[in-house]
Amino acid sequence: MKKDTYYARREKVYMAGTIYPDIRVGMQRVNLTPTVEIVEGEKRIIPHTPIYIYDTSGPFTDPTIKVDIKKGIDHIRQPWIAQRKASGKPVGQMACARAGIITPEMEYVSIRENMNCQELGIDTHITPEFVRQEIAEGRAVLPANINHPESEPMIIGRNFLVKINANIGNSATSSGIEEEVEKAVWSCRWGGDTLMDLSTGANIHETREWILRNSPVPVGTVPIYQALEKVDGKVEALTWEIYRDTLVEQCEQGVDYFTIHAGIRLKNVHLADKRLCGIVSRGGSIMSKWCIAHQRESFLYEHFDEICDILAKYDVAVSLGDGLRPGCIADANDEAQFAELDTLGELVLRAWEKNVQAFVEGPGHVPLHKIQENMERQIKMCHNAPFYTLGPLVTDIAPGYDHITSAIGAAQIGWLGTAMLCYVTPKEHLGLPGKEDVRTGVITYKIAAHAADLAKGHPGAQVRDNALSQARFDFRWRDQFHLSLDPELAEQYFREGKHTDGEYCTMCGPNFCAMRLSHDIRHNR
Amino acid sequence: MKKDTYYARREKVYMAGTIYPDIRVGMQRVNLTPTVEIVEGEKRIIPHTPIYIYDTSGPFTDPTIKVDIKKGIDHIRQPWIAQRKASGKPVGQMACARAGIITPEMEYVSIRENMNCQELGIDTHITPEFVRQEIAEGRAVLPANINHPESEPMIIGRNFLVKINANIGNSATSSGIEEEVEKAVWSCRWGGDTLMDLSTGANIHETREWILRNSPVPVGTVPIYQALEKVDGKVEALTWEIYRDTLVEQCEQGVDYFTIHAGIRLKNVHLADKRLCGIVSRGGSIMSKWCIAHQRESFLYEHFDEICDILAKYDVAVSLGDGLRPGCIADANDEAQFAELDTLGELVLRAWEKNVQAFVEGPGHVPLHKIQENMERQIKMCHNAPFYTLGPLVTDIAPGYDHITSAIGAAQIGWLGTAMLCYVTPKEHLGLPGKEDVRTGVITYKIAAHAADLAKGHPGAQVRDNALSQARFDFRWRDQFHLSLDPELAEQYFREGKHTDGEYCTMCGPNFCAMRLSHDIRHNR
Repeated sequence: MKKDTYYARREKVYMAGTIYPDIRVGMQRVNLTPTVEIVEGEKRIIPHTPIYIYDTSGPFTDPTIKVDIKKGIDHIRQPWIAQRKASGKPVGQMACARAGIITPEMEYVSIRENMNCQELGIDTHITPEFVRQEIAEGRAVLPANINHPESEPMIIGRNFLVKINANIGNSATSSGIEEEVEKAVWSCRWGGDTLMDLSTGANIHETREWILRNSPVPVGTVPIYQALEKVDGKVEALTWEIYRDTLVEQCEQGVDYFTIHAGIRLKNVHLADKRLCGIVSRGGSIMSKWCIAHQRESFLYEHFDEICDILAKYDVAVSLGDGLRPGCIADANDEAQFAELDTLGELVLRAWEKNVQAFVEGPGHVPLHKIQENMERQIKMCHNAPFYTLGPLVTDIAPGYDHITSAIGAAQIGWLGTAMLCYVTPKEHLGLPGKEDVRTGVITYKIAAHAADLAKGHPGAQVRDNALSQARFDFRWRDQFHLSLDPELAEQYFREGKHTDGEYCTMCGPNFCAMRLSHDIRHNR
Repeated sequence: MKKDTYYARREKVYMAGTIYPDIRVGMQRVNLTPTVEIVEGEKRIIPHTPIYIYDTSGPFTDPTIKVDIKKGIDHIRQPWIAQRKASGKPVGQMACARAGIITPEMEYVSIRENMNCQELGIDTHITPEFVRQEIAEGRAVLPANINHPESEPMIIGRNFLVKINANIGNSATSSGIEEEVEKAVWSCRWGGDTLMDLSTGANIHETREWILRNSPVPVGTVPIYQALEKVDGKVEALTWEIYRDTLVEQCEQGVDYFTIHAGIRLKNVHLADKRLCGIVSRGGSIMSKWCIAHQRESFLYEHFDEICDILAKYDVAVSLGDGLRPGCIADANDEAQFAELDTLGELVLRAWEKNVQAFVEGPGHVPLHKIQENMERQIKMCHNAPFYTLGPLVTDIAPGYDHITSAIGAAQIGWLGTAMLCYVTPKEHLGLPGKEDVRTGVITYKIAAHAADLAKGHPGAQVRDNALSQARFDFRWRDQFHLSLDPELAEQYFREGKHTDGEYCTMCGPNFCAMRLSHDIRHNR
C-alpha cells in the first residue's frame, strides 16, 4: 500500500456571508492527501473531506496580498461602520444588538464559529441571531473600536469558542517598536485571538499605532500605564483629567478594549495586607497606592460613568481589571479577591447601562480544587458577563514553565465557562517574552482553549482531532502536520529522528509500531 | 533595603529512621537567604526555615559519593533484604504488610512522604503503620525487586504523593546503551520517581543491566518486547515458554515491575475494529495479533497465576497493561477500553491472592469531560488498586506539544486519584525522546503531579509553593531559583533579560513592578 503525499497543503480561503454577501471570512483550508490503495491489482483513490481551520492571521497568510507594515493592513470593517453612520444606526455592537440589528460583524463571527459544520452536516446553535442575542444580553462581547477598521470581528463569550489573548509590549528596559510589531504579527499567525499591548516606558503611543495599523485582531491596553508615564511614574500625581485624556487618545487611535482597574475600593485595599504576595497586578498596585496616598476612592471608580460615556462613543469594550487577583497559591480565593469581584459585578451593570460591552478579568494563581468556585462566583456576581482569566497557574514552583502550570488551570476554567484565556509564556515572573516565547505561549493556550472547547462540546470542535488522528493512523504524515497547531515544529521533530520510510517513526521502530500491527489485524481478519 | 544573597544553596542531607535507625533517607535541603533589613539604622537579620525537597536522584547528587557507572551504585536495601531472609520473614512487601510487619522500606517511604511536616508542625496521616496498611489492602504498591537493592523505596498509591514515571529505551533505529543510561540518571535528577526501560531492538539485556545497576528508582519493563525479539519479531511465533523464560531472566536482573497485557481477551479484540485509531499500545497490538492468529486466549491470560508465582518470588509488582487504551479523542471511554478494564479488575484479585502487588494502567487520549468516568470506574472495577495513566492527552491536535496536552489531563486525573502518571515528552507520536526531551517531560509531569498533590491536600505539599512565593515577593531571586523545579532554566531566563539590579525583572521594569509597589504600600501605611 503506497500513499501519495503530494496533495497535502494548507491554503487561505474566504467564505461569504448570507445576510451580508460582501463579508469575506478568512480561514485556512487543509486539503488532505487522498489515500491510494491497490486492491486486487486495482488502484483505488479514496479522497478525504478538506478541513477548515479558524484563522486569526488576517492578510499575513494570504499570498495574494503583500503587506507593507509601514502602510498597515486593509480596513475590512470600514464600509460597515460607514454604512451604520450613514443610516443613523447605533455605532456600537451592544446598542445594535439591543435594537434588534444584526451587524455584519455579528454574521462574520457566526461564520467563524461554525468551522466545518456546514460541510459535515453538524448541527450548530450559533446563528447570526444567536450572536446578536448573546451580545444584547451581555453574555458575549464583540470588541470593535470604530477606529480600528483593520480588525476582523471575533466574539468573546462562554457559548462560543474559547479565545486566547497574547500580551506583548516593551518595558523601560527592553525591546523596540519593530520587535513589538513583529511579535504582534507572530502572535496572530499562531492563533492569538486578541493582543494586549502592555508597553510601558518611552514611545508608548507610537508602538501602539504601529501595532493597531497592522493588527487583524482586536487590541487591548491598560491606559493607566500611559497615564503614569505622563506623570513621570509618580503614582500620587495621577489625576482623572490626565487619565481621561489618555483614554480619549487611545479611543481615537483604535484600541478595542481597555483594562480598567475600577474595582479597587479604598475600603478593600487593606485586605491585601494579610497576603503572602500582596498585590501583583500592576494596575492594581498603582491604584491601591493612589487610594492610600490620597485617602479617597479612586478616580476610576468615581468617574466610571464618564469613562463609559467615552467608551460608548467609540464602541470600546471594558475589561474590568482584577487588581487584587491572587499572585500565589496561598492567596487564592481570599477576601481581597472576592470583595473586588463584587465591585466588578456592580460595574458590569453600570457599563451595560451605557451600552458598553463588558467583561471581567480573573486570576492568577489558583490550585485546581479552588478553580470552580472562581467561575461560579464570577457568573453569579457579574451577571453572566464573560470571564477573562490569566491562567490560572495551579502551582508556584515552576518558574520557567509557567506556560504549563497555567495551561492546566486555563483548560480547567475554560471548560467551566471562562470565555477568554490570557496566555502566560515560559518567561513569566522572569522577564519579558521574546518572539519564540510568544509562539510557545500562544500554542500552549490554543491547546488549553481547544481542550475546553472539546469538553464543552462546541459544534465541530472535534472534527480537527478526528481528522488528525485518522491521518496519524493512516501514516499520512503531511496531513497530520498540516492539521496540527504547529506544523513546522511537528515536522522538525519527525525529521530529527532517524526516520527511514513513511510508515513509522523512531518512537517504536518498524517491528513495534502498534498502528502498523493494528492495520495488519484489520486486513488479515 | 539590601538583601544578602550569599547563603542560598541546595544541599543533600539524610534523615534517619525511628523504627530502623540505620535508614538514611536522602533529600535536598534548601538553605534560604536570611532577609537583612535596616530598620532605624539598626541591622536586622531575619532567618527563614530551610525547606526540604523530595529527592529521587540518589547518590548522583551527593558530592561525597563518586559514582562509577561501570560498577553501579550502592546497594542500600541489601541488609534489609538479607535480614528478612535470615529471620524467615516473607520476602515481599505485600506479604510482610499482611503479616503485620513494617519493613524498613515502609518506614523509608513514610519519611519521604512527610517532607517538611515535622519541621513545620504539620499534621500528617502518613505513619509507617499507615504505609503498611495501604500495602496490605492493595491500595498502594512499593515496587522493590529483591535483586534491585540499589533502589530507594518509594510508594505508589492515591493516599500518597502522586508519582511520575519516565519512559526511556532505544528502538531498532535509535540510540545506544550509554545514551540510555545517561537519560536514566538525568530523569532521576529532575524528579522521575520510576523509570521504564522500553528498549526494543538489539542489546536489550545489556541496556537493562546498565540501567538497573545505576538506578536509584524502581525500574519497569514490558517483557513481551524482549520475548518478541527472541522470535525475530514474528508475533505468531511467541509462546508461553519463551515469555516465561524472559520473565525469569528479568526478575533475576532486578526489574521492579512488569507491564503485562494480560487483559487482552479473544472475545474483546474485535471491539477495536470500530475505532478511529485501532490499537495504539505496542503490547496490546502484539497480543491481539497473537490471539487472532491462534484463535485462542492469550498465554498471558491463561498463565496469569504462574506469572504471579514467579513475580512473588522476587517481589516484582505487576502493572496491568491497558492494551486497548484509546489512542485518540474519538476512541475515549469506548466499549473496548472498558471491557478490558473489567478484566484487569479480575486480574488484580488474582495477583493479590499470590501476594503480588498490582497496579492498573490507564489511558491515553481522553477529553477533559470524560476523565472522571475513567477514574471512578477504575476504582470500582479494580478494587482500589492504584491507577497509572499515560497522560491522558486532552486533544489530538498538537503533536510536538504533547507533554502539555497530556499534562492537562494528568493533573486532572491525578487530582481525582491516579497514583502515578507516565510522562509524555514533546516528541510523542514523532520520535524517541532525547536527553533534553526527558528533562522537559519530567519537569512537566512534576508540575502535573504537584498540582494534584496541592488539590488533594497532601500534608506539607504547599510548603514549597509558599516558600517560593515568599522569596519572589521579597526579591530573594536565588532562593526562588533553588526552590523551583528547574533552578537552572529559571536562572537562565532571568539572566537573559536586561536585568539591572536585584529588585525587578524585565517583565515590568522598575516603575511598574507590582511587588515593589506593594512593598511601598505596606511600608508607608
